[in-house]
Amino acid sequence: MTNPVDLVEVWRGDLCESLHQGHAVVCDHNGAIVQAWGNPQAVIYPRSSCKMLQALPLLESGAGAHLKGEQLALACASHEGAPLHVAMVGDWLADMGLGDDDFRCGPQASRDKDLYLSMIRAHREPCRIHNNCSGKHAGFLTLTKHLHAGPDYTQIDHPVQVACKSAFEEVTQETSPGYGIDGCTAPNHACTVHGLARAMAFFASARDRSDTRSVAAQNLTEAMMAFPELVAGQGRACTELMRAMGGKVAVKTGAEGVFIAIIPEKRLGVALKITDGATRASECAMAAILVKLGVLNADHPAARARMTPPVLNWDGRVTGHITPTAALL
Amino acid sequence: MTNPVDLVEVWRGDLCESLHQGHAVVCDHNGAIVQAWGNPQAVIYPRSSCKMLQALPLLESGAGAHLKGEQLALACASHEGAPLHVAMVGDWLADMGLGDDDFRCGPQASRDKDLYLSMIRAHREPCRIHNNCSGKHAGFLTLTKHLHAGPDYTQIDHPVQVACKSAFEEVTQETSPGYGIDGCTAPNHACTVHGLARAMAFFASARDRSDTRSVAAQNLTEAMMAFPELVAGQGRACTELMRAMGGKVAVKTGAEGVFIAIIPEKRLGVALKITDGATRASECAMAAILVKLGVLNADHPAARARMTPPVLNWDGRVTGHITPTAALL
Repeated sequence: MTNPVDLVEVWRGDLCESLHQGHAVVCDHNGAIVQAWGNPQAVIYPRSSCKMLQALPLLESGAGAHLKGEQLALACASHEGAPLHVAMVGDWLADMGLGDDDFRCGPQASRDKDLYLSMIRAHREPCRIHNNCSGKHAGFLTLTKHLHAGPDYTQIDHPVQVACKSAFEEVTQETSPGYGIDGCTAPNHACTVHGLARAMAFFASARDRSDTRSVAAQNLTEAMMAFPELVAGQGRACTELMRAMGGKVAVKTGAEGVFIAIIPEKRLGVALKITDGATRASECAMAAILVKLGVLNADHPAARARMTPPVLNWDGRVTGHITPTAALL
Repeated sequence: MTNPVDLVEVWRGDLCESLHQGHAVVCDHNGAIVQAWGNPQAVIYPRSSCKMLQALPLLESGAGAHLKGEQLALACASHEGAPLHVAMVGDWLADMGLGDDDFRCGPQASRDKDLYLSMIRAHREPCRIHNNCSGKHAGFLTLTKHLHAGPDYTQIDHPVQVACKSAFEEVTQETSPGYGIDGCTAPNHACTVHGLARAMAFFASARDRSDTRSVAAQNLTEAMMAFPELVAGQGRACTELMRAMGGKVAVKTGAEGVFIAIIPEKRLGVALKITDGATRASECAMAAILVKLGVLNADHPAARARMTPPVLNWDGRVTGHITPTAALL
């Protein structure tokens, strides 16, 4: 975590009220750093930003051969638990003859406002399927079934997690120094910011290769770009930024200030970590880097909404704004 | 904001996942720095941590002579909009012959879980009285009425705000470099971390003096310490920490990572700002400093819950913990 640089400022009136530092790396398909901010060797948990890595074994094994693009997008998603997501993951679960209790992710309230309110009014408790990771877990369950493995698929020594770790270390080209338990109880392996960007460049350049893993990486990337609303949801940074880039770039947020991008047309991978873990800053910094790389139009409303959003108070009054530092402009 | 130091770490498994930096100052009754971390001259917005400064004109003017201790505590509060707070502020408002529309703070959903859920189920929208600042605004309205001033009491040139600025600059012993509009639409004047700590030491030593301002400061401090549940609410950091210290210390949080303490028995004031604005870090750092100063027992459950809280995931599993850095231990 040493030697981060100033990446995002939060202004109120004429004063910079808060400041976010971090590390970011843009990496080419050879794994070489094209541009970096802070320390590329900083060790981080990618959290949900690496869901496409965790979905590689699902496709490489053949377990997911029957899955549609929508399901692949959900496997890589941190969805908002809107009716659309819940219905599609529910169908996937039913197709396997499984139910909510087979998930090992905990219950999480829907982030879809209407569903959230209606569940409160109906005195309905959140289910595991509403967890933002339930699509990833449906993928884990699909692989579990294919492997005839036991039900505790989030255990570190479960065949699903063994395969995930192997894929993770191979595409990051690093030996992970350790793992943590993620918000959804799955293991999350640590890597450097450079390693995460390297993995994303592997995805970005997958179309140039025909090996099983590269085909899997290409299919996952294309699914994310084709179904941005399934990767997050209406009004969410990932969904809105992918739409703004016309389905040509895949982006994915992770908890505690992580964000990645896969840019196939440039064979570039991007990874960033805000040191303090703030999402408002990771979204701003990623939007700024995408603009800098020429794949996001700075004037697009979705770009402005993430890169230079206003700060509003309880009365809806603009009291300040968030902005990238000069380093990102 | 330059030269902050590492104050709080967020661990997951065996890795420090996120890190919070900041500035902190402990100041004595002469305004001298007893101990400091980072840059005492960093300029910040105190946000809600300076509500007791904003309440000084209410008492100094005589406008609040009839107010009870509970009301003084509410004037300094960022309350959670629980039924207790709403009822007491509502009575205060009714005593003045005023209603919710006379508040200039915006509406905010109650942070009291039961009231929050019941309002959703009743399809009731949040009101201005539920705003965490409604007690401060009731104080502003009381002073407005006393001064026979106009209704727009949050305007920078309104007599209430002119008096607040004057009191703020005098107790911080600084000329404020500017102001921002706060979450509740009131002006919030900038000062240094040292200036904010100096102001808190003024409050901490108020019992030694008999001038009008010092008596006001003492009454406000005593009200906060006597009614900790009114300053925030059940389970909130300010309330729980004040209870844990047996009503001998007043503490107050502010948005964007600010926290202050007033320690009368030691004539010390404390102010801190987490550079990135994170509340999880400001609470941890303040608990650590209170322990370091010998006024909070590190083994008290409320101290542990703020200083070294576990990080839980959606399934309630402990995945990590928050801890002060060595600098604070």
